[in-house]
Amino acid sequence: MAENLPPMQYRFLGRTGLKVSAISLGGWLTYGGHVDDEKTYSCMKAAYDVGVNFFDTAEGYEGGKSEIIMGQAIKKFGWKQQDLVISTKIYHGQANAANPANPLNNKGLSRKHVIEGLDLSLKRLDLPYVDIVYAHRPDRQTPIEEVVRAFNHVINQGKAFYWGTSEWSASEIASAWRVADKLGLIGPVVEQPQYNLLARERVEAEYRWLYAEHGLGLTVFSPLKQGILTGKYNDVAAPPPGSRLAEGDGRSAFITNFAKTFGDETWKANLAVVARLKPIAEELGATLAQLALAWALKNPNVSSLITGASRPEQVFENVKALAVVDKLTPEILAKIEEAAQNAPEAQPLRFV
Amino acid sequence: MAENLPPMQYRFLGRTGLKVSAISLGGWLTYGGHVDDEKTYSCMKAAYDVGVNFFDTAEGYEGGKSEIIMGQAIKKFGWKQQDLVISTKIYHGQANAANPANPLNNKGLSRKHVIEGLDLSLKRLDLPYVDIVYAHRPDRQTPIEEVVRAFNHVINQGKAFYWGTSEWSASEIASAWRVADKLGLIGPVVEQPQYNLLARERVEAEYRWLYAEHGLGLTVFSPLKQGILTGKYNDVAAPPPGSRLAEGDGRSAFITNFAKTFGDETWKANLAVVARLKPIAEELGATLAQLALAWALKNPNVSSLITGASRPEQVFENVKALAVVDKLTPEILAKIEEAAQNAPEAQPLRFV
Amino acid sequence: MAENLPPMQYRFLGRTGLKVSAISLGGWLTYGGHVDDEKTYSCMKAAYDVGVNFFDTAEGYEGGKSEIIMGQAIKKFGWKQQDLVISTKIYHGQANAANPANPLNNKGLSRKHVIEGLDLSLKRLDLPYVDIVYAHRPDRQTPIEEVVRAFNHVINQGKAFYWGTSEWSASEIASAWRVADKLGLIGPVVEQPQYNLLARERVEAEYRWLYAEHGLGLTVFSPLKQGILTGKYNDVAAPPPGSRLAEGDGRSAFITNFAKTFGDETWKANLAVVARLKPIAEELGATLAQLALAWALKNPNVSSLITGASRPEQVFENVKALAVVDKLTPEILAKIEEAAQNAPEAQPLRFV
Amino acid sequence: MAENLPPMQYRFLGRTGLKVSAISLGGWLTYGGHVDDEKTYSCMKAAYDVGVNFFDTAEGYEGGKSEIIMGQAIKKFGWKQQDLVISTKIYHGQANAANPANPLNNKGLSRKHVIEGLDLSLKRLDLPYVDIVYAHRPDRQTPIEEVVRAFNHVINQGKAFYWGTSEWSASEIASAWRVADKLGLIGPVVEQPQYNLLARERVEAEYRWLYAEHGLGLTVFSPLKQGILTGKYNDVAAPPPGSRLAEGDGRSAFITNFAKTFGDETWKANLAVVARLKPIAEELGATLAQLALAWALKNPNVSSLITGASRPEQVFENVKALAVVDKLTPEILAKIEEAAQNAPEAQPLRFV
Repeated sequence: MAENLPPMQYRFLGRTGLKVSAISLGGWLTYGGHVDDEKTYSCMKAAYDVGVNFFDTAEGYEGGKSEIIMGQAIKKFGWKQQDLVISTKIYHGQANAANPANPLNNKGLSRKHVIEGLDLSLKRLDLPYVDIVYAHRPDRQTPIEEVVRAFNHVINQGKAFYWGTSEWSASEIASAWRVADKLGLIGPVVEQPQYNLLARERVEAEYRWLYAEHGLGLTVFSPLKQGILTGKYNDVAAPPPGSRLAEGDGRSAFITNFAKTFGDETWKANLAVVARLKPIAEELGATLAQLALAWALKNPNVSSLITGASRPEQVFENVKALAVVDKLTPEILAKIEEAAQNAPEAQPLRFV
Repeated sequence: MAENLPPMQYRFLGRTGLKVSAISLGGWLTYGGHVDDEKTYSCMKAAYDVGVNFFDTAEGYEGGKSEIIMGQAIKKFGWKQQDLVISTKIYHGQANAANPANPLNNKGLSRKHVIEGLDLSLKRLDLPYVDIVYAHRPDRQTPIEEVVRAFNHVINQGKAFYWGTSEWSASEIASAWRVADKLGLIGPVVEQPQYNLLARERVEAEYRWLYAEHGLGLTVFSPLKQGILTGKYNDVAAPPPGSRLAEGDGRSAFITNFAKTFGDETWKANLAVVARLKPIAEELGATLAQLALAWALKNPNVSSLITGASRPEQVFENVKALAVVDKLTPEILAKIEEAAQNAPEAQPLRFV
Repeated sequence: MAENLPPMQYRFLGRTGLKVSAISLGGWLTYGGHVDDEKTYSCMKAAYDVGVNFFDTAEGYEGGKSEIIMGQAIKKFGWKQQDLVISTKIYHGQANAANPANPLNNKGLSRKHVIEGLDLSLKRLDLPYVDIVYAHRPDRQTPIEEVVRAFNHVINQGKAFYWGTSEWSASEIASAWRVADKLGLIGPVVEQPQYNLLARERVEAEYRWLYAEHGLGLTVFSPLKQGILTGKYNDVAAPPPGSRLAEGDGRSAFITNFAKTFGDETWKANLAVVARLKPIAEELGATLAQLALAWALKNPNVSSLITGASRPEQVFENVKALAVVDKLTPEILAKIEEAAQNAPEAQPLRFV
Repeated sequence: MAENLPPMQYRFLGRTGLKVSAISLGGWLTYGGHVDDEKTYSCMKAAYDVGVNFFDTAEGYEGGKSEIIMGQAIKKFGWKQQDLVISTKIYHGQANAANPANPLNNKGLSRKHVIEGLDLSLKRLDLPYVDIVYAHRPDRQTPIEEVVRAFNHVINQGKAFYWGTSEWSASEIASAWRVADKLGLIGPVVEQPQYNLLARERVEAEYRWLYAEHGLGLTVFSPLKQGILTGKYNDVAAPPPGSRLAEGDGRSAFITNFAKTFGDETWKANLAVVARLKPIAEELGATLAQLALAWALKNPNVSSLITGASRPEQVFENVKALAVVDKLTPEILAKIEEAAQNAPEAQPLRFV
């Protein structure tokens, strides 16, 4: 099944010298959670074997279990860190229903939690360092100078090579750079936003001037909009019985909130876009998912698409999107735009 | 007795991202001294159980024994540092009557003592780092640049996350910030002053412009003015026989000096204030102590009140003050002001 | 054979306080490769005994084996690091035919590879630090700020004392200094270029203003132009059968490329220069190689000539060039210039 | 014999917060050399017992043996570093007749030797850090920026608290401060010069403006001018037979050079000064040595006089000078000036 796959592509992480596979594998909502350990190992092995070098996790994924199992896979297969790009994220802590005690400082971006949190992440991963550490959210209660200094502290201590952000506003990222420049420190080199054919505003409009100004790279999560862009919900009148969508999820507020949107107005509008995209995918001989991934990769500011997989086959299917990228001619892109009808308004760049 | 307590409140330590319990527990004059080890453990356990996360000690408390016993409690109960905020203070050394040898450099804020002193404190605490390290007094014989660099050194080495001051003048704190800003270093984020209804000048007048200018937080010691604000001395003609107040204290110059003030003019004036506060406390259904603590918590610049306790019950009594804070309406506060008659004169702010 | 050798000369590494032997020994194309371990030991011992203190290697030499065997020699002979100047170079990784897997980030000058690469080099060398770490090539895909910060990081961590460049353009070196100066960091103090009587442009023209401006030192590789300047190819119609030149080299792209130039126009022109130099060497009672080395040492910007040797005798022969330097009177130098006919055009200095 | 000694006095090391005993003990020309180990221990013990807290040594004293034996004394008596001020000096290396091999980089102030040299000193002392590390001489072949960065590196690594200079010119010290200020680094806080009644120019004239400008402290060596100021040479027609002065010293170039001056014009002039000082000492009931030490201590820029001792009695004799300081009234000082006839010309201060 891994045969006849297109060769992996690699991109620089923004303006840094680090290269990441255009398709990467993330542990969100899967590893350490509903995907069992053996499946996790086989997905990671499949990804590694087809050239994925970038594996993404977070302290907040499955209360830390995602880091544990992904670290075990690295040990199990004898992979070397110089062949991998490992990232984790600090902000959410490991608080979950089973461990509600004193989560006060065990989250956020205080100097205390950035340092303690990364130390605990490295312990769970059983690694001396990660390549990238993300601020998993902005922390509007901690001064940006404290945040910038804390991430530089862990970089200086050799616990990470680069730091980035996730779901920060453009002006928050710019503030971090302003403080970093003022103090001669290292700024955030990458942002991890949601980006897909149904969520374009932030990447295409809000962040627009950051790419040239600060060399910002993007490692994208939810490139398939929680599966909506695969088309699997287009003929579903109600959430599949027994699915997490139907029954909610005790662990993940994200899934619970997502389930609540099932069938609402936005949901229906999204399905309509998917329906209009379908003939274009068929014209290209691609699945809807592959079309959606290829479209996101067409954006030169995207360094990597972080995909999820609970079976190796899903890894292979996603990688096939690489072969679709070149088929996205100006004409096809125009058709996609017409189907999507959601291009953000062009804004004059602030600083260029 | 811990039942029906109001929930703990948490506040940021000044402008940092660190959250401390509004009521915290300090080892001053108690732990490692006249309070035995078992009592110390039970007080700390009681505090932890009602949500206190901030525990304060110093190299100078009981010649270092306060740090030893408080560190043992942390180990004994298996508490994790990410759930705690531990502070210690450097300045006084561990010199006491039993150890008079060569205290020359084993105190003060020289680079030597800040580094050596904190290393010894961490050894006594048996912890790899504290959250906050305070300069326990200003050292007017050591250049402020040496002091600022020394505290940044221990922060860079991972031995503390934040540094603060205790009993520094406003202009000394501002000088530290000026040097820190000039050198791109971290300034002191918190001051530990005395503050209570009988000692208001420094916090309400002298420091006034530092809160907005430098985001200074306050962790207050002696919020009950060595017990005077509990009213326990109001009907006492002479120091209780056998008490430390009557017999002095071989170890603590503070207690010895305090004992000397018994019955003097200021003492009498203070008791008069307490007498006038009593009906207000009764009106609110609170003890005098709870009224005094609640009043100090009403000050938004206060991050935490460091209380002492030699029995768990005292912890619970102090925590009940949290329920009184909201009862301090403008009318009640006006009555308190009238009773206290010691509001510092308003001064125009220097920099705002 | 080591008798009657001229005493070793030592020069500062550019403007630094480090002294290197004017003749040094490099592991390129020899140690860990076609020169066996015993020969490697005896060459290094011979060099050490005649006063060579500078030994040069690289992560990319023989896939890391050069570092391993040279480190073993240091251990074997009980040499102390304070008596040696050890350098290695980061850029090429250890990728070779036997290990093609994922060389993505295991090369270049990203922060990741500089730090990981040097750690692996130190492990192979079995040393806690090197004296000099070179950026073995410019990395035009990594921002110069990332590169400068990465080399400063390893210096701050005690893994190297100085950093330099190899085969960087003058403007790349100047850019590194500009970033270093802006950030208050340490700039590159030495460049390792090719320099010999047949390759003069870069050292004599392009770098000309860097010597005074940044105190740049030069550690020269290929001072004999891969042996052409020994005259050994002057009477050779075809590559010696069985030689690496005839049969290429599976490992080294350099040798393979060099072999391709055999007999071309530049090759012939070079041999003609050598033929014209021969009578000058004879007049001085020196070999052609000694004349060529002495001529390069006459350049005051040269800190050291990195020579190769597969037998101790070659070390001794090279060291004898030191006795020829003083014989290069203005008259002799004029004769050499006439024979070489390749003096770079004088350019006005940019900044002087 | 240690009875009835005046109490030790302590002074700040220049403008730092470190306090050193006004009389300190140095290992130069004694410990690890002609003074045997037991005598060394008893001298150090005697000094410690009378309040000396500052012990001075150097990598270059007796080829490193001074550091070894002084470190052993600290271990032997169980002294704690927080009660001591230990200094060593880097520059001369440990080169001596028995170890001439490759002293190239094993001396001077290159980054390599400062770091390697201090590491070796700490190993010999068997201590994790010293309080003060001196640049034992200026190194005019190493850029001052490299020197300043190297000493800051060892301070940042926790291997020393302060750095100073020894026998640097005023403009070299000022250059170091200029570079330190430009880069936001720590400058040299103390100079170790010769200073005594027969050698005053540098301390009283050349360095004059550095005290206020940079807070420079002085730790003085040779306060008795190699014994001349004790008067012991005044009735000696020839060097005492069998003395080091008569027979030279295979180890110390200093002693050999000093011996050469015996009886020359300067020698005679110095003896004449001593002869004129004698009645003043007698008037004060002090020895000549005590008068000379007390006179040097009268200079407020002097932090400590580093004295030598081969017997505990010498320590006690030197300490008695402390009782003489207050006897140096303006009238007595005027008499001393008249006897010395060597007051440096007053120079207008450059920067004040």
